[in-house]
Amino acid sequence: MPKAISSITKSYIAGFLDGDGCIMFQLIRRKDYVYGYQIRASVVFYQKSTNRHQLEWLKQIFEVGYLRDRKDGMTEYTIVGLKPVIKILKLLQPYVHLKKEHIRLALKIYKLLIDRKFNLDKFIQASRLVDHSGVINYSKKRTNTSKNLKQFLRQHNLYPRND
Amino acid sequence: MPKAISSITKSYIAGFLDGDGCIMFQLIRRKDYVYGYQIRASVVFYQKSTNRHQLEWLKQIFEVGYLRDRKDGMTEYTIVGLKPVIKILKLLQPYVHLKKEHIRLALKIYKLLIDRKFNLDKFIQASRLVDHSGVINYSKKRTNTSKNLKQFLRQHNLYPRND
Repeated sequence: MPKAISSITKSYIAGFLDGDGCIMFQLIRRKDYVYGYQIRASVVFYQKSTNRHQLEWLKQIFEVGYLRDRKDGMTEYTIVGLKPVIKILKLLQPYVHLKKEHIRLALKIYKLLIDRKFNLDKFIQASRLVDHSGVINYSKKRTNTSKNLKQFLRQHNLYPRND
Repeated sequence: MPKAISSITKSYIAGFLDGDGCIMFQLIRRKDYVYGYQIRASVVFYQKSTNRHQLEWLKQIFEVGYLRDRKDGMTEYTIVGLKPVIKILKLLQPYVHLKKEHIRLALKIYKLLIDRKFNLDKFIQASRLVDHSGVINYSKKRTNTSKNLKQFLRQHNLYPRND
C-alpha cells in the first residue's frame, strides 16, 4: 500500500464503502487446519461494470485484491485475507460512519487470532464474533457458525466440555 | 446550508453519493405551466431503515429535503428542487468520481433554465439534456421525454416547426 493516501481520499473511500461496500467474516471448513476451520475476512466493493474504472482505481490504491465481472452486469472488487483487510480497515476507520461497528469487531477478531497465547479458546471466541458479524450484516444464510465449529471439535475430541 | 462543511465531510458525502446515491432529472407534466412541463431535479440517498441516522445526519448538514421510510425496510432521503440540488452538487463536485458527468449535465440544465433570455428553445434544449440524464442513469422507464414535450407544444401551437 502506498505510504501516503490523503485524508480526502480516505474519507471519500470511507463514504463509498459505507454506501456500497461490505465487510465480511466467514468460518470456512478446512480439512488441513488444526481446528478444522479457517476465519476468512474480506472487503467487497460492488459497481455496475460500466463503472469498473472506479474499482480499478481503488485496487491501484490498495495494491491488493482482485476484480471479477459478474454475468449480471456488476463488477466486484474483493480483498480477501485478514492482514490486508485489517490494514485497509485501520486506514478507513477514522472516516467511516456506518461501518464503525464492523471495523471494531474486525479488530477484535484480529486481536484474538494474532494473540501470542493463541489457543482453541481464543479461536472459539473469535468464531463467536464471526457469528455476530453476520448479525450486524443482516445476513440470513450462514453455512458455518461457531456451533458448527464446536460440533466439529467435539467429534474430533478437541472440545470435550459440555458448553 | 451551514457556511463551513469541512472538505473531509464533503469528500465522505461524495463517496457515499457515488456508492449509494442518485441524481435525477425528470420532465413532469404540469397543466399550469407555460410550456406544459416542469423540469424536476432531485438527489436521493438510500439506506436500510436501521441506518436512518446516517440520512438524518445528511439532512442536518444540507438543511433541506425529507426522509421517507419505505415499506420494504429502506429509507430514502430526497432533496427536490433545482436550487437546493444545484447547491449540493456544486458543493460535492470537486470530490465526486462516478457522478462527475451527472453534475456537469445538471449544471448545464440549470444554466439554460436560469438564463436571462430564457425561452422555449432553451427549455427544449434543457429537456433534451434531461433525456440524456436518463441515459447516464441507465433508467429504462421514462414517462416523459423531450419528444412528449414537443408533441404537447405542437398540439398547443407553441412549437409549429417540423423538428
